[in-house]
Amino acid sequence: MIIDCHGHYTTAPAGLQAWRDDQLAGLKARRAPAKGVVIVSDDEIRESLEKAQLKLQRERGTDVTIFSPRASAMAHHIGDAATSLHWTQHCNDLIQRVCALYPENFAGVCQLPQTPADPLANCIAELERCIDDLGFIGCNLNPDPSGGYWGAPPLTDRYWYPFYEKMIELDVPAMVHVSASCNPSFHATGAHYINADTTAFMQFIQADLFKDFPTIRFIIPHGGGAAPYHWGRYRGLAQDMKRPPLDEMIRHNVFFDTCVYHQPGIDLLLTIVPADNILFGSEMVGAVRGIDPQTGQYFDDTKRYIDASALVDADKQKIYEGNARKVYPRINRRLTSRV
Amino acid sequence: MIIDCHGHYTTAPAGLQAWRDDQLAGLKARRAPAKGVVIVSDDEIRESLEKAQLKLQRERGTDVTIFSPRASAMAHHIGDAATSLHWTQHCNDLIQRVCALYPENFAGVCQLPQTPADPLANCIAELERCIDDLGFIGCNLNPDPSGGYWGAPPLTDRYWYPFYEKMIELDVPAMVHVSASCNPSFHATGAHYINADTTAFMQFIQADLFKDFPTIRFIIPHGGGAAPYHWGRYRGLAQDMKRPPLDEMIRHNVFFDTCVYHQPGIDLLLTIVPADNILFGSEMVGAVRGIDPQTGQYFDDTKRYIDASALVDADKQKIYEGNARKVYPRINRRLTSRV
Repeated sequence: MIIDCHGHYTTAPAGLQAWRDDQLAGLKARRAPAKGVVIVSDDEIRESLEKAQLKLQRERGTDVTIFSPRASAMAHHIGDAATSLHWTQHCNDLIQRVCALYPENFAGVCQLPQTPADPLANCIAELERCIDDLGFIGCNLNPDPSGGYWGAPPLTDRYWYPFYEKMIELDVPAMVHVSASCNPSFHATGAHYINADTTAFMQFIQADLFKDFPTIRFIIPHGGGAAPYHWGRYRGLAQDMKRPPLDEMIRHNVFFDTCVYHQPGIDLLLTIVPADNILFGSEMVGAVRGIDPQTGQYFDDTKRYIDASALVDADKQKIYEGNARKVYPRINRRLTSRV
Repeated sequence: MIIDCHGHYTTAPAGLQAWRDDQLAGLKARRAPAKGVVIVSDDEIRESLEKAQLKLQRERGTDVTIFSPRASAMAHHIGDAATSLHWTQHCNDLIQRVCALYPENFAGVCQLPQTPADPLANCIAELERCIDDLGFIGCNLNPDPSGGYWGAPPLTDRYWYPFYEKMIELDVPAMVHVSASCNPSFHATGAHYINADTTAFMQFIQADLFKDFPTIRFIIPHGGGAAPYHWGRYRGLAQDMKRPPLDEMIRHNVFFDTCVYHQPGIDLLLTIVPADNILFGSEMVGAVRGIDPQTGQYFDDTKRYIDASALVDADKQKIYEGNARKVYPRINRRLTSRV
């Protein structure tokens, strides 16, 4: 079985965006916020997936996508706590409908109702709702809800601890994933995303988060940002700072996906990072949607790179399936009907 | 000849920091700023280099270091325009003394007196002073003088154009190099530096800067941040955005150094980026000062990785010498006595 740990509902039916547009218009007009309803039919959901994610699953030979709302649309910097909560709940409910329609193909991961500088009570409640009531298996945590101005404390700060305690209690991991950038310096998918990955990795090196939470699990997407390419720098910095060696630091707690869109990059990742700490991911129908003229294949068809790599089969199996089952243990209940 | 394009005076004699401490104390006490003098003797300069940079040049077999003030100490976010100008001029004057004492070993690159949101008149004047009067060959340009809050316009914005015009007139390149981070999210050398490299690269993809300045030259340090590792992503983004292919975009204008501190990272860089766009650099006595237990050699002894790579000799020669002479043409005047 091949589990893709990184997919967003980038092709959601227009009714979702219509709701959001109305919410944003309300904010502008200073109308009192109302949660309202998102008008999207099951057929629209089916159509949005059949021509995109499901089609690509079949074509590429993957089985299950760990699926969450569109990351760039989370936009935690817009509005207030109610804005974020309503939008988040609608997005998560739509993911739940996807998973109910296609239980074999999708497992849900939730967006969180973050708001800059707000305490995390809403996030804790929404995580609980999504895991317990909607059957989700993880969450996406935004280390920069300001959208490119980086006003939140580092991920290792005690500010986040109440949320981490709930993650532990529910036994779910978080993918560290920023949203859109409203800072003109940072292109969203070309700079902000990758920078956030690199930033989170360095934060984990600097502090003792994993002493406080020995079983917590984070996925750093996009192949770990710059970390594997600069592994020597990070090994050296950790050593100079008298921090644990990287392999030891990440072992039970930090995992990279394979959203690296060319063979040499994937080869570097697979050479550098222990196979136990890599999860197959493609973020298909995401940041890069074109075909690579050098290969004639989609840039984001990352399965091809892994298949073509020198990795032994046992390690490929870990990356394709085994590690995802460990990092997202709740996926196992969903997949019991399948071998 | 081997030219190291990336060295900072991280071992400057204590007199420099004493001056800076006094300046900072003055700021705190709201004393009127005075430029004053930095008290450092020639013997102190010699000693600071003989036991560090010069010793390592001899041991590693490199010849000339393109040398600039300590990047993390530029701290453009501190104080006002006068603070930045005085500090910058002292730092640059000290580099000039280094180059005068060791004309065979060092060529100067200047810090700029940037200040958040200030126009660039001081930077233009200081660049002119350093190139024309002090014999420098380039500059370090900070894309984020706020120190981690990214308030400046992108490097492709017209805000920077008057400065670029002066660079063209003087025929000098700029290394894109941030300074310390005062944002607790960003470790300076582990996140802020690498993020800035990645950010600058993406900014260059997005705009037509090199149409407006066909001969301008930027060095993106630290092996180009995350760019080579994610080359497929960047090729794909450029394609989706209908921007020029990367090799074409960088050809005459964007160069990466080799400050990547392990063999697989360097191998990736050399595989992905055309040899014409890579300059040897080590940033020795910099971010990572320890010895790699896996190799028994200094992490930042990047010459070893290039020597050990599969690159043909003609390409190594470009990276070690030829490209630096093209990107920093003023170095040729300094090296006329040497073959």
